[in-house]
Amino acid sequence: MTQQLDSFFGALADPTRRAVIERLASGPATVTELHAPHAMALPTFMRHLGVLEKTGLVRSIKKGRVRTCHIEAAPLIAAQGWLAWQRHLWETRLDQLDQLARHLDESTPQ
Amino acid sequence: MTQQLDSFFGALADPTRRAVIERLASGPATVTELHAPHAMALPTFMRHLGVLEKTGLVRSIKKGRVRTCHIEAAPLIAAQGWLAWQRHLWETRLDQLDQLARHLDESTPQ
Repeated sequence: MTQQLDSFFGALADPTRRAVIERLASGPATVTELHAPHAMALPTFMRHLGVLEKTGLVRSIKKGRVRTCHIEAAPLIAAQGWLAWQRHLWETRLDQLDQLARHLDESTPQ
Repeated sequence: MTQQLDSFFGALADPTRRAVIERLASGPATVTELHAPHAMALPTFMRHLGVLEKTGLVRSIKKGRVRTCHIEAAPLIAAQGWLAWQRHLWETRLDQLDQLARHLDESTPQ
């Protein structure tokens, strides 16, 4: 899992690759459609797509001459789950500090 | 924001740096405490800490000879927010497909 998180977060550390994920979150798309908004050569774009496929964030199917890509939910959920857990720990600690502060406040003689 | 997401996700694409975040999510810690569980030279560890500080995920304060680190919530929340949004889009689309399938099912003559 830790190696997977390395590659998931690494894959997301690039604006082109995040744009592909943003597009695919709304539904499958062909490589041509995915490439269209990006001002870069197709081979460069394909390398980004390759990174996403290698990490398992994106899968593709070729039918005739058209390759269609779709998102894979599991890695996205895993990466978000890790971040959500850290946030939960951190917020729980803030709550505890808050309660402690209130408790000290109440027990201080006026 | 997009450059910040690049650096947040890039910083999280490493097990040592994620371990530091996991530790700090439960409360502040000194550099010595953070370094202790990691079998690596202090200068190497300090480079990882430097990456986390540069992206704003971690802040540190030096008091005398002791440097204490704490987590910064905003980048964690931003990174998690981006992932949560993609997941939301993707799940909304699945729900819509599900409704469409049910609708087609109901309107098909038996």
